[in-house]
Amino acid sequence: MNLVLSLKSFNEPEWIDRLQALLPNRKIEGWNGGVAEPEKAEYLLAWKPDPAAFSALPNLKVIFSLGAGVDHLTSLPELPKLPLVRIVDPDLTSRMTEWVVFQTLLHHRQHLTYAAQQEAGVWNGHRQWAAKDVRVGILGLGELGLDSAKALKALGFNVAGWSRTPKDVAGIESFSGEDKLEPFLNRTDILVNLLPSTPATHKLVNAERLAMLPHTGALGGPVYINAGRGATQDEAAIDAALTSGQLKGASLDVFAIEPLVEASPLWQQKNCIITPHVAAESDPQALSEYVAQQIKGFERGDALENLVDLDVGY
Amino acid sequence: MNLVLSLKSFNEPEWIDRLQALLPNRKIEGWNGGVAEPEKAEYLLAWKPDPAAFSALPNLKVIFSLGAGVDHLTSLPELPKLPLVRIVDPDLTSRMTEWVVFQTLLHHRQHLTYAAQQEAGVWNGHRQWAAKDVRVGILGLGELGLDSAKALKALGFNVAGWSRTPKDVAGIESFSGEDKLEPFLNRTDILVNLLPSTPATHKLVNAERLAMLPHTGALGGPVYINAGRGATQDEAAIDAALTSGQLKGASLDVFAIEPLVEASPLWQQKNCIITPHVAAESDPQALSEYVAQQIKGFERGDALENLVDLDVGY
Ligand SMILES: NC(=O)c1ccc[n+]([C@@H]2O[C@H](COP(=O)([O-])OP(=O)(O)OC[C@H]3O[C@@H](n4cnc5c(N)ncnc54)[C@H](OP(=O)(O)O)[C@@H]3O)[C@@H](O)[C@H]2O)c1
Ligand SMILES: NC(=O)c1ccc[n+]([C@@H]2O[C@H](COP(=O)([O-])OP(=O)(O)OC[C@H]3O[C@@H](n4cnc5c(N)ncnc54)[C@H](OP(=O)(O)O)[C@@H]3O)[C@@H](O)[C@H]2O)c1
Repeated sequence: MNLVLSLKSFNEPEWIDRLQALLPNRKIEGWNGGVAEPEKAEYLLAWKPDPAAFSALPNLKVIFSLGAGVDHLTSLPELPKLPLVRIVDPDLTSRMTEWVVFQTLLHHRQHLTYAAQQEAGVWNGHRQWAAKDVRVGILGLGELGLDSAKALKALGFNVAGWSRTPKDVAGIESFSGEDKLEPFLNRTDILVNLLPSTPATHKLVNAERLAMLPHTGALGGPVYINAGRGATQDEAAIDAALTSGQLKGASLDVFAIEPLVEASPLWQQKNCIITPHVAAESDPQALSEYVAQQIKGFERGDALENLVDLDVGY
Repeated sequence: MNLVLSLKSFNEPEWIDRLQALLPNRKIEGWNGGVAEPEKAEYLLAWKPDPAAFSALPNLKVIFSLGAGVDHLTSLPELPKLPLVRIVDPDLTSRMTEWVVFQTLLHHRQHLTYAAQQEAGVWNGHRQWAAKDVRVGILGLGELGLDSAKALKALGFNVAGWSRTPKDVAGIESFSGEDKLEPFLNRTDILVNLLPSTPATHKLVNAERLAMLPHTGALGGPVYINAGRGATQDEAAIDAALTSGQLKGASLDVFAIEPLVEASPLWQQKNCIITPHVAAESDPQALSEYVAQQIKGFERGDALENLVDLDVGY
């Protein structure tokens, strides 16, 4: 009944202490090329883990992803076919919604224009279109996409979403399946990407798709926002679209390679906002409680929550 | 039954055309130092009007303010004691809420820090506090303040408001009256000013009041946001508080003198966002319909809506 942690770029000792306080009767240790009693390890909490841990821990029962995304695990050929639980947490969801709402409003309210004017000491108002005349389209209507969709709808935007399976949400138009992607993009002024990284979503936002976004909307040109995963976008195509004017603006929290490489031209694109994968940095205490509760529930015989479907990859 | 317009810095011919289309049977004309049949003018639509119009139009029955604020009228000693109707419009309210939510999130989500990092090509995440740990305080819980309060509450912020009379709004703490201003400021991390300009609110946000905002909150220092009226703030005190660090940031859409004078040090304050009185620029068609409907209703014998109390000045 031991718990092993293999967490790249997290403060592992802090995570062990927090979890130990919540699960006082277990042995909890960090993976360090090995653990003292590998056969006793039943749970693995992982973020970009050392793949060697999988075969070295023969009695694992559940793997927990320390994040909403699981591509850091599903991309590993060594990943065993075990129940894989991901994080779904209201605190994480609200933080993502804040980021998405903020970046949407930033472009909608012409912030970059006003910031440049301020720097030049210029006082000059610009015509402001109403939110109801702006069509937001959300790629991925899951835990995160749906919450962002509702918040943007509440602020008055015209919101639609695209997902694998159809959704029935009041006031939010649902597009589903590959054949509905083009009509969805054709009606979208601000495209928000909250897709998971899977084989099916790899570089889904490419030059061809960006070209499907219309220039007929209130903003005068489309905006692209991504806080899902960098692997689902073609960054060279985004850069080219910003340069050509096909994209009027962008806000990116995620990139194919993180940290974003120094040589990326995106750093300098003047209508592109870059944040360092912080859209939904969540509360370590809340996440620790989530993992501890799932372990306790599992041992009481409750079903695991938020299991990943390994066949579709999310 | 004629309508006269005296609109400074609006496109008067366009306003006449729009209103004429909605009120085809009236004579509508712009004030131009005089009008053809002054005794027939029953309605005046005004924005920073020529005060000479009041005495020159002896049979005025109603004055309309082309805006939510009426200080441009109440400040005129010549203003006759006639019914004064101001603009209350859902489109205007939503736009104001967008601006307030946007500026609140800008400071909450550390945008200026990330923008500076992007310019320097730096990838570095910062601890992000949760919205529930941020205490927003709204000065003025009227049409605009209340709508902003609800939108911020929906995003998870801890919201309170201060008004002249007590309010009972679910989930929003109400402070009212002068003696409750200090305790209200003492619990406020992000102060949002949506007060009207009246004798009682003149330079209400001054050095003494800014000093009542705590440094114990999640943000590490208070933020001041104003989209009400510039006359309700002491701009030198705001500048000094930004320089000393008493204020961590500010977003200002309104100023005592507009356009903001070139010499104002606020232009250069690095944590101060300036927008040129555009927070709630509204739809001329919607506002024209509002005025036309009120005139028609008034002539049918309906009560005028959104009348200003000339004794308190809003
Ligand atoms: N930047 C950050 O800080 C941060 C933080 C947390 C999470 N994330 C990312 O956000 C992603 C989304 O999280 P979530 O909790 O919302 O995931 P989720 O609940 O699994 O939702 C995923 C959504 O994407 C849709 N989708 C998946 N594959 C698709 C395809 N091939 N075609 C069309 N739609 C497809 C799903 O459709 P169905 O509804 O039909 O299944 C679902 O609506 C995570 O995977 C993670 O990568 C980023
Ligand atoms: N920047 C822009 O683009 C823009 C656009 C539109 C409007 N505005 C400004 O926004 C202001 C507010 O508009 P509104 O429609 O919300 O006005 P409102 O409905 O009249 O509300 C005013 C609020 O301020 C409170 N208040 C007034 N005097 C007070 C005092 N001495 N002490 C405490 N509270 C006081 C009122 O208290 P009670 O509720 O107790 O009466 C009320 O809650 C307008 O006056 C206008 O100047 C700016």
